Amino acid sequence: RTLKIGLIPGDGIGKEVIPAGRRILEALPASLGLKFDFIDLKAGWETFQEQGVALPEETVSVLKSDCDGALFGAVSSPTTAVKGYSSPIVALRKRLDLYANVRPVKTVVSAPKPIDMVIVRENTEDLYVKEETTRDTPQGKVAEAIKRISQRASSRIATIAGEIALRRQNIRAAGAPSIHKGPLVTITHKSNVLSQTDGLFRVTAREALTAPRFADAGVKIEEQIVDSMVYKLFRQPEAYDVIVAPNLYGDILSDGAAALVGSLGLVPSANVGEGFAIGEPCHGSAPDIQGKGIANPIATLRSAALMLEFLNEEQAAAKIYAAVDANLEEGKLLSPDLGGTATTEEVVQDILRRL
Amino acid sequence: RTLKIGLIPGDGIGKEVIPAGRRILEALPASLGLKFDFIDLKAGWETFQEQGVALPEETVSVLKSDCDGALFGAVSSPTTAVKGYSSPIVALRKRLDLYANVRPVKTVVSAPKPIDMVIVRENTEDLYVKEETTRDTPQGKVAEAIKRISQRASSRIATIAGEIALRRQNIRAAGAPSIHKGPLVTITHKSNVLSQTDGLFRVTAREALTAPRFADAGVKIEEQIVDSMVYKLFRQPEAYDVIVAPNLYGDILSDGAAALVGSLGLVPSANVGEGFAIGEPCHGSAPDIQGKGIANPIATLRSAALMLEFLNEEQAAAKIYAAVDANLEEGKLLSPDLGGTATTEEVVQDILRRL
Ligand SMILES: CC(C)[C@H](C(=O)O)[C@@H](O)C(=O)O
Ligand SMILES: CC(C)[C@H](C(=O)O)[C@@H](O)C(=O)O
Repeated sequence: RTLKIGLIPGDGIGKEVIPAGRRILEALPASLGLKFDFIDLKAGWETFQEQGVALPEETVSVLKSDCDGALFGAVSSPTTAVKGYSSPIVALRKRLDLYANVRPVKTVVSAPKPIDMVIVRENTEDLYVKEETTRDTPQGKVAEAIKRISQRASSRIATIAGEIALRRQNIRAAGAPSIHKGPLVTITHKSNVLSQTDGLFRVTAREALTAPRFADAGVKIEEQIVDSMVYKLFRQPEAYDVIVAPNLYGDILSDGAAALVGSLGLVPSANVGEGFAIGEPCHGSAPDIQGKGIANPIATLRSAALMLEFLNEEQAAAKIYAAVDANLEEGKLLSPDLGGTATTEEVVQDILRRL
Repeated sequence: RTLKIGLIPGDGIGKEVIPAGRRILEALPASLGLKFDFIDLKAGWETFQEQGVALPEETVSVLKSDCDGALFGAVSSPTTAVKGYSSPIVALRKRLDLYANVRPVKTVVSAPKPIDMVIVRENTEDLYVKEETTRDTPQGKVAEAIKRISQRASSRIATIAGEIALRRQNIRAAGAPSIHKGPLVTITHKSNVLSQTDGLFRVTAREALTAPRFADAGVKIEEQIVDSMVYKLFRQPEAYDVIVAPNLYGDILSDGAAALVGSLGLVPSANVGEGFAIGEPCHGSAPDIQGKGIANPIATLRSAALMLEFLNEEQAAAKIYAAVDANLEEGKLLSPDLGGTATTEEVVQDILRRL
């Protein structure tokens, strides 16, 4: 099977880590029978400055018609609002209907306080519909934004969260070391204040997750109000397996969870739609370390693996995860965000060697 | 001076901690020249079940016309949406125009990783305007909520945040031990996605905080996108002094910050308006420990002190803070949330003794 993969480095360290993602895919053992074609694509702040658009139509159409998946690096935002500029990744998620943002947050197994959770973030609506207006009043400007929650999007995000919980359970059943006893999905919302919008998310997610295929497989459901979820995330992170949340809460929770494992540089994500996935490291463009060659490539390598999982190449994904974990378990070649002194290149080589 | 204080225990452990708040006010040394009149008031889920309203008009009117301040315990929310019920504290904040929610999060000075920050949360708008609608579509229900951000509310919340930063700086200048070098206000928003609403908050807050009285006193301004703020909160909490945020982010950040000091049972808040303040522990009604007599009274005692601060009784407030800190520094009589075995009553007595 040949997979066509779009490569969208974007800005900042995106340009330093996306090539690492390409290299690990190319280095996968031939025995897996996987080949890759790569297509370089543009998006981001630099692209905006060159072309006047942050997400060129060509990028969208090539992804739609020619690609099986993609790797997206990061984009810089201008420091003040710039007319016509808006985040290309937010737009891509909507244009390609990549309705789920999946963010596994996991320590190595031997960590003193092991954590192993996945945050499943709705990726198309909530405040990210970006419908905003501003009016002038005698007391000054008043701006409003729409938070939109639909039954349809809530149901499908909860369903994929349930599926991920089942898949994780199957991997555990196959003997993988684990801190969890059974599959658990925690629904996060703020329905004590937003009874209609978050109330709809809550009720719909509950309904989807009580479907027989989840209930029969023992998937447990729990709820947490978002503020209390953040509190619990830090007090007892080991208690969580799969967390499902509307877009904005998911954005916040996944950065919070990343803090628990020591560095955003470790945390991958995948933007998942029907038969398509974009891997995306969670760390952003990191202008402070850009060009120094010290960005942690692990979030991108894991994002490449996560993309492969959602393209049904779980064996190939497992190889990458294992090579990354071996590097981390040994702990000798680590990038500066993890307290080490290794360069991006050294970390990549160490991981390729373990593949 | 006689202060009239409304007491609104609400539900759950609210009934166990608010009496402690009353007792510490009554126990303040006579030399301070402060007297208190207390007025018992109702609100909450039990009140709703008795009277059909969660916030009786009488409670609002007595607070408005007879009181200088109040202590609010906690309210339980029904587990599923109940027609006509909505959170009385959210309503009170709006009805009394208590525009700032101030939440100091602080370890004892001798903590291995000392933290000393205040989260200043806008308290009247954002998604808390609770303007929601739901419609049926061929794809199912779609619900929308309004997020409203005004220049007026953003300006006054940033201004009070600046004032709090100055006040903290003055206390440090007077010789209090501190982990901070100078006053810093961190503006939190998500203007990379919400360019109009959060963009307005950001620009307005910046403007308010660059006023000469802040700039001349050396108040520094920093910005953090809310997801990255949560990340930083956990990675380098010692870096933050005053954090100012729109309502919902402030709600989430203050619970997150509470996790850093070990227990929500330690964290006070004050809902502050012009010449009026309601002290409110951050912990909620905690049905799991209700009636056991083991609720931590410290959040309420500190909330009483915080209320006094905003009623310009800083000396009295300082006495309460010192008594609480002495109890915590000694660490002998601690409630179970802090790993101790003391009852609410034992903790209260220990603190009263130190007053
Ligand atoms: C850059 C920003 C628009 C984006 C988001 O909010 O989704 C980022 O925080 C993320 O989590 O991918
Ligand atoms: C109970 C709830 C409505 C409230 C809020 O969201 O403001 C609480 O979380 C708080 O922080 O006081």
